[in-house]
Amino acid sequence: MHTYRIAAIPGDGIGKEVVPAALEVLDAVAALHGGIAFRYDAFPWSCDYYLAHGKMMPDDGLRTLRDYDAIFLGAVGDPARVPDHVSLWGLLIAIRREFEQAINLRPAKLFRGLESPLRRPNDFDFVVVRENSEGEYSEIGGRIHKGADELAVQSAIFTRRGTEQAIRYAFELAGKRRGRVTSATKSNGIVHSMPFWDQVFREVGAEHPDIAASSAHVDALAAFLVTKPETFDVIVGSNLFGDILTDIGAAIMGGIGIAPAANLNVNGKYPSMFEPVHGSAPEIAGLGIANPIGQIWTAKLMLDHLGHQDMGAHLLQVVEDVTEAGLKTRDLGGSAPTLEVSREIVRRLQR
Amino acid sequence: MHTYRIAAIPGDGIGKEVVPAALEVLDAVAALHGGIAFRYDAFPWSCDYYLAHGKMMPDDGLRTLRDYDAIFLGAVGDPARVPDHVSLWGLLIAIRREFEQAINLRPAKLFRGLESPLRRPNDFDFVVVRENSEGEYSEIGGRIHKGADELAVQSAIFTRRGTEQAIRYAFELAGKRRGRVTSATKSNGIVHSMPFWDQVFREVGAEHPDIAASSAHVDALAAFLVTKPETFDVIVGSNLFGDILTDIGAAIMGGIGIAPAANLNVNGKYPSMFEPVHGSAPEIAGLGIANPIGQIWTAKLMLDHLGHQDMGAHLLQVVEDVTEAGLKTRDLGGSAPTLEVSREIVRRLQR
Ligand SMILES: CC(C)[C@H](C(=O)O)[C@@H](O)C(=O)O
Ligand SMILES: CC(C)[C@H](C(=O)O)[C@@H](O)C(=O)O
Repeated sequence: MHTYRIAAIPGDGIGKEVVPAALEVLDAVAALHGGIAFRYDAFPWSCDYYLAHGKMMPDDGLRTLRDYDAIFLGAVGDPARVPDHVSLWGLLIAIRREFEQAINLRPAKLFRGLESPLRRPNDFDFVVVRENSEGEYSEIGGRIHKGADELAVQSAIFTRRGTEQAIRYAFELAGKRRGRVTSATKSNGIVHSMPFWDQVFREVGAEHPDIAASSAHVDALAAFLVTKPETFDVIVGSNLFGDILTDIGAAIMGGIGIAPAANLNVNGKYPSMFEPVHGSAPEIAGLGIANPIGQIWTAKLMLDHLGHQDMGAHLLQVVEDVTEAGLKTRDLGGSAPTLEVSREIVRRLQR
Repeated sequence: MHTYRIAAIPGDGIGKEVVPAALEVLDAVAALHGGIAFRYDAFPWSCDYYLAHGKMMPDDGLRTLRDYDAIFLGAVGDPARVPDHVSLWGLLIAIRREFEQAINLRPAKLFRGLESPLRRPNDFDFVVVRENSEGEYSEIGGRIHKGADELAVQSAIFTRRGTEQAIRYAFELAGKRRGRVTSATKSNGIVHSMPFWDQVFREVGAEHPDIAASSAHVDALAAFLVTKPETFDVIVGSNLFGDILTDIGAAIMGGIGIAPAANLNVNGKYPSMFEPVHGSAPEIAGLGIANPIGQIWTAKLMLDHLGHQDMGAHLLQVVEDVTEAGLKTRDLGGSAPTLEVSREIVRRLQR
């Protein structure tokens, strides 16, 4: 029996509801398949913590997290009380950066039992590989002058290491899937970073002659996710482009409430972090009606990452059985509370 | 009788097919309503021109354009022969910048007779006001080092003048429409330029207490255009965000082939430029099957700009009559060639 040590950070808002729900499911999968178990340590780091302590986590927070096998996070942010950039950069982005989680993996597929807002959603199933450590999300920049003369500069940084890592990961992933990679670019308008990105894409592509590689400008690509999502297999994009494209992916699946994500440390030095695409949704927090599927599908990505793809695949199948059976939270057009959905998944895993 | 002098630049690919088609329509509207006429001077500036002369337009090209009442452009780009950044920055973006066309106006609405890819497209009708002179599209940046150490830096520049101009335009436009403005931000991830953008948005908003102002992160906003486009009236975004959001707008209308755009010089010093959202579409160029509606709707925006909103409104109504009657090009699911669509519009304007 191998016991994984998981740092659980529910965070803010609905994170505090969907993380416990997903952990029950995770335990049920482990119990069913056997051979592994999870030990969770919960950390209350959040905007509440910030308001009490003046920081999002203790000074040794990152040191504490380092020894875990994985970090399982809900959502961060409570913009009415703490500015987003303070809460997010103080916790979520701090973890992504400190632990070199350079890849943000975000699958999207047509789910059994869910209604896509698309009229004719062909059976799409793609994964976005988002560069997760640099690019447009950089602290380099600032402002100068006041009043009418004021201006802000924001510098995006694309290193070969960061760019190549994301692109190489995308090609390798495509090799295990349907063999196609599409790169999100905008080199017709953004004339330094994007031509560099394109060049690295071409170079890495040349090492993978077996993979069908193509590029599309991010504006066109955003539109294609609406008009022909079934044509994509692996999409690779910068931090910002990956962020935007994956929200569209979530929308066409039927809602941001189900979209999962993994922040992967691929050099094996540090723990990876698993947190769904959705945020803390303050407007429905505390009502017990949040959709737990994003967090549960994220748990599946954690199982995959820990080497238990069989369990991950089984879990996702059961989740789809439940949506197909019509048990859905409000955001998906149903009326089931959070725990009714997650416990039905547990129940089906136990029988 | 007032005669407007229009500089017509068909450009590349299907630009050479849809511009002449749209000019016939424009003449028909003017003849029908009376009182105005158009005189067109055509300029062959394009990738062909570049390959013959080593530049996209003559050295005095911008000087020549300056005296026109408006510029009517088709599409620029032939990436197989001329790199996009060379052709686009040498012509399209050069004109936008030289003539201080700081606003890119891009309407999107559900068209009579067209099928949206959305399952339940409520009756949406919004306009994106895109900052068109600076932001992420800046030539500031470059590369350093080689091989594994190579990195690219790209700086986005947001001036108060550029930012304020776009945001103010959006508020004023909302005042003439349904009184709502949504700002596209990403201040949770992009921590210098976007908080600046948000601040200007709040300040200008305070001057317009009658307008309902709100902000949404661009990732969420992209998703909302798929899930609830009918909730938007005016959306204001940076150069890049406006670019991405308007391609989604085009997609949900039924295709990039119908989406119009106006590059507006709002200080009245220089001509404005009218060019549809779509590109030169080399893959169908020369076949006579391109959709002329994007270019024709763009002509409507030119009529509006020149002060002939009555003619513009009438033109758009006739275009919708034609799509509603089922006459469509291939991209919209029909089989009509370019000129059959544009000439049916002309015919209906003449009777
Ligand atoms: C061709 C490209 C530079 C251009 C832009 O991004 O501005 C186009 O996509 C547009 O939307 O007008
Ligand atoms: C909250 C925000 C900083 C974050 C991001 O853009 O990375 C979120 O949108 C996400 O997609 O994980």
